[in-house]
Amino acid sequence: MKFRVWAPEATSVELLLAETTCAMTQDSSGWWEAAPPVTGPGHRYQFRINGGPPLPDPRSPWQPEGVHGPSVTWDHAAYQWNDTGWNARPLSEAVLYELHIGTFTPEGTYAAASQKLPHLRALGITHIELMPLAAFPGERGWGYDGVSLYAPHPAYGTPDELKALVDAAHGHGIAVLLDVVYNHLGPDGNYLGACAPYFTDHVRTPWGEAVNFSGPFSDEVRAFFIDNALMWLRDYHFDGLRLDAVHAIFDETAIHFLEELAGRVEELGATCNRRLVLIAESDLNNPRLVHSHHLGGYGLDAHWIDDFHHALHAYFTGDRTGYYADYGSLADVAKALRQAYVFDGQYSNFRKRHHGRPPIDVRPSQLIVYSQNHDQTGNRALGDRTSHLAGPASLKAIAALTLLSPFVPMLFQGEEWAASTPFLYFTDHVDKALGRRITQGRLREFAGFDWPASGPPDPQDRRTFERSKLSWPELTDPAHAGILAWHAALLALRRDQLLPSANRAAPDVRVHFDEPAGWLTLQRGNLLVLCNFSTEPRRIPHPSGAWNVQLCSSGITPPKMIPIPPKTTRIAIRS
Amino acid sequence: MKFRVWAPEATSVELLLAETTCAMTQDSSGWWEAAPPVTGPGHRYQFRINGGPPLPDPRSPWQPEGVHGPSVTWDHAAYQWNDTGWNARPLSEAVLYELHIGTFTPEGTYAAASQKLPHLRALGITHIELMPLAAFPGERGWGYDGVSLYAPHPAYGTPDELKALVDAAHGHGIAVLLDVVYNHLGPDGNYLGACAPYFTDHVRTPWGEAVNFSGPFSDEVRAFFIDNALMWLRDYHFDGLRLDAVHAIFDETAIHFLEELAGRVEELGATCNRRLVLIAESDLNNPRLVHSHHLGGYGLDAHWIDDFHHALHAYFTGDRTGYYADYGSLADVAKALRQAYVFDGQYSNFRKRHHGRPPIDVRPSQLIVYSQNHDQTGNRALGDRTSHLAGPASLKAIAALTLLSPFVPMLFQGEEWAASTPFLYFTDHVDKALGRRITQGRLREFAGFDWPASGPPDPQDRRTFERSKLSWPELTDPAHAGILAWHAALLALRRDQLLPSANRAAPDVRVHFDEPAGWLTLQRGNLLVLCNFSTEPRRIPHPSGAWNVQLCSSGITPPKMIPIPPKTTRIAIRS
Repeated sequence: MKFRVWAPEATSVELLLAETTCAMTQDSSGWWEAAPPVTGPGHRYQFRINGGPPLPDPRSPWQPEGVHGPSVTWDHAAYQWNDTGWNARPLSEAVLYELHIGTFTPEGTYAAASQKLPHLRALGITHIELMPLAAFPGERGWGYDGVSLYAPHPAYGTPDELKALVDAAHGHGIAVLLDVVYNHLGPDGNYLGACAPYFTDHVRTPWGEAVNFSGPFSDEVRAFFIDNALMWLRDYHFDGLRLDAVHAIFDETAIHFLEELAGRVEELGATCNRRLVLIAESDLNNPRLVHSHHLGGYGLDAHWIDDFHHALHAYFTGDRTGYYADYGSLADVAKALRQAYVFDGQYSNFRKRHHGRPPIDVRPSQLIVYSQNHDQTGNRALGDRTSHLAGPASLKAIAALTLLSPFVPMLFQGEEWAASTPFLYFTDHVDKALGRRITQGRLREFAGFDWPASGPPDPQDRRTFERSKLSWPELTDPAHAGILAWHAALLALRRDQLLPSANRAAPDVRVHFDEPAGWLTLQRGNLLVLCNFSTEPRRIPHPSGAWNVQLCSSGITPPKMIPIPPKTTRIAIRS
Repeated sequence: MKFRVWAPEATSVELLLAETTCAMTQDSSGWWEAAPPVTGPGHRYQFRINGGPPLPDPRSPWQPEGVHGPSVTWDHAAYQWNDTGWNARPLSEAVLYELHIGTFTPEGTYAAASQKLPHLRALGITHIELMPLAAFPGERGWGYDGVSLYAPHPAYGTPDELKALVDAAHGHGIAVLLDVVYNHLGPDGNYLGACAPYFTDHVRTPWGEAVNFSGPFSDEVRAFFIDNALMWLRDYHFDGLRLDAVHAIFDETAIHFLEELAGRVEELGATCNRRLVLIAESDLNNPRLVHSHHLGGYGLDAHWIDDFHHALHAYFTGDRTGYYADYGSLADVAKALRQAYVFDGQYSNFRKRHHGRPPIDVRPSQLIVYSQNHDQTGNRALGDRTSHLAGPASLKAIAALTLLSPFVPMLFQGEEWAASTPFLYFTDHVDKALGRRITQGRLREFAGFDWPASGPPDPQDRRTFERSKLSWPELTDPAHAGILAWHAALLALRRDQLLPSANRAAPDVRVHFDEPAGWLTLQRGNLLVLCNFSTEPRRIPHPSGAWNVQLCSSGITPPKMIPIPPKTTRIAIRS
């Protein structure tokens, strides 16, 4: 079989295969190749560049001994798929669920996650989104410091076990998205720079060296990431990718990397007749990400919209720290419900500049909204969830507004039952000095925080990881079960009442509110959400017609829709 | 009168006015203000921030004692304009002429430049483009290290003398464009950073700190540059701006600085009913610069296109050094004539990556082409012009192809008569250490160059500047006068034959060539350029019809159009 590595500026490259050293020859494009007489999976190998230390393959398919260890061959064609004819639902009909394989189940494996698919299907989830799986140093971590981008993290299972999870999800009618990080690589175990000019110092990212997307040799760098995307979609049958922090992808060429990537993924989807999606993480409120090529856009399918979260979080928790200082009014919540972008050009006190532009020519199905996600939870000092900060009444209102919004809703693992467990920041850096810097950096970030008696959670401490695992037995608790039922009921309403109009270009949404009186209504066709956030009963104005209350957050179905009791959300259907 | 300075993070700012010190008060947007009882022009002033040294005003209108000296008030309303009703011709009808005030005439002043307007009008120039005028350190320089962006460089004359030049140009029917540098400031005399966060270290430019176009406080930074643009257009009656090296303007916000600038300039033009244009310098071959907002573009009016120059230069001079390695064939010349972009997506050996994208939805009038400019001349070791590198036959062919191309042609001062003078790189840094670095850097850049007996020109040496001044008396030399007549005749043909169809969206251009035979024809409607670059007579195929030869580079009007003698260009009109 052929072993290849791109090292355009190397003077010699050797393949170390088991106990033998094989010479490699370079072609005109800077790729080195050797074709030793071995076949199939399971062969350990490394590359030696210019006589230096043995290095793993940048495109290694499998790093069972970790990111510093040898690469191991894998045969992607060997897995027997059971998902013939599978296709994901379009984003206009989607409900996303973000999960972290390591903490989603006690076992923290693909196989264990697979057992929870019936729970997700019953809840009404159409797409799960896995936090990054690219191999990173140590066992435990969120995955945003991945360094071996083609190799799934070994702590979660083998490549075939990952395929089995995707296969099983498809069997349950659930699509699977993968979070990929193309704006930087992690600080430990990143050997790419030793092989080729993958990085540039012309720009900076907050997390590490910037990727060389537009300098000399950038064609192959772009191909490295594009081929990575295509590999997950083709070899692992992922239905799409979530692209981490695209604002840190710096590209000055006339064809932006994201545009090129979108074109290549579209080609693949057309070839294999599958609906493949690309979703950007971005807080820049820039429609260019999702505009079509004809409108000068990059042609991605959707982008995350933090504004929606921030507006809900600030209103319901009263939190005004950090970027929440820009939010807090019911007017912000209403704007988020109408167009997702709260900032569409006005001044941001937090950013100290004007921010965003109106979401013109953006369809509701191109905007992913959430009231929790891994960042908004895990980047808090104690990893506390909305359910730890707001009471059940607020929680139910938040869920109703998110899940019945015109946009594509996403839940974060455990949100559906108000999980008692936090989602903390955890790491397992084998580079101990780096581990100490992470621990200390975290303490500095939250200097002055009023820590509990147990002290601040240490990211490097295994217990921090263990504490972040969902506690599934708590679902037998009626309070948690009630929250779960609320989410399931909302998603059933979404599916039955809202999907028929979900493909419309303009959001079918009318929002009314009274800031001092503390109420808000969200109407979508014949579905009406009435929220009374105040401590008084409210006679909330509503459109005429015969409205039948379908759901009530207080649990008692009322004889009349109005007045709405204090701290109550009701959902009604016009007959 | 009011004195104002933006210093949002200062704790105290004082106005030093003549012999007095005035306290200033800060408003909520970070501007400090004082209103001492003085009026009119001529008041020397400085600002003292946090008790530091006296600093000039970042928006100083006049720095008669240089960029390190005090600022002086100016009354822009006092000048009596004579250009009522003036409007520039559209770019579709334009012929540009780039000039450097300091070397265009022996005197190097606005007043002296004004005396040459009849020459330019007779030549057929519609727009002159002045190299940067923003005050820079020392007396002599190209102007790309300007630091006092609102103050015209004092060595050239007063602000009113600059206005008089613009006024006189308008009187001759010639529009005036100004080259402005918004991607960085010069290294000496840049006091902006001492006042406010004008710069960022998140990105790098090749020439200095990057401007803070999208970080905290960037609204006022953007306003600084936008107000600067509007000032030149409004107070000095410039008809447009050439924006230096826009690829070094880094802006991650949803509304790119260039888009915002274009919008504001369009507003000003609509308000005063004037045709104002923005022209970007860019070698990225990216149509986004000139695409309308509706197409996701920045809405600039035009951009420079280096490809056109490089294709001509490499073919006619045989130069293959540096970026010329990417060019050299007649096919490149033909492609440049058809669509200006030679690189529209293919691999560039020089850049070591794929480059550009097709110029779809780009009108010919949005592309500025040239066979010389200040950079392509002055960045050569000896500042040698095309006329120093190629013989008169090539020179006439180059002029014909450039001036009769479908794009907007631009000449560089003296090009019209094959000036014998070079255009060298010259500086006058008063910071002697910086001056030495410039001198040494230039030597390093051209290490290994085969210098003439006189040695390499030293940028800091006044003689380098003096040598770069045009020698107008040489126009009495018949050889120079003949080249001038050739350019004037070409521009007359362009005006009379090509303008009627100049507003068409698609370039009206047919190009045929034979690479081995060394001929090329350029047809534009009823005008035909036939070039024989070979040393043999050529029977060049041409469209049917009765063609009358109008111009012949060999000087003898032939009885028959075909064959074309060796090294000859003929221009014919179909009757």
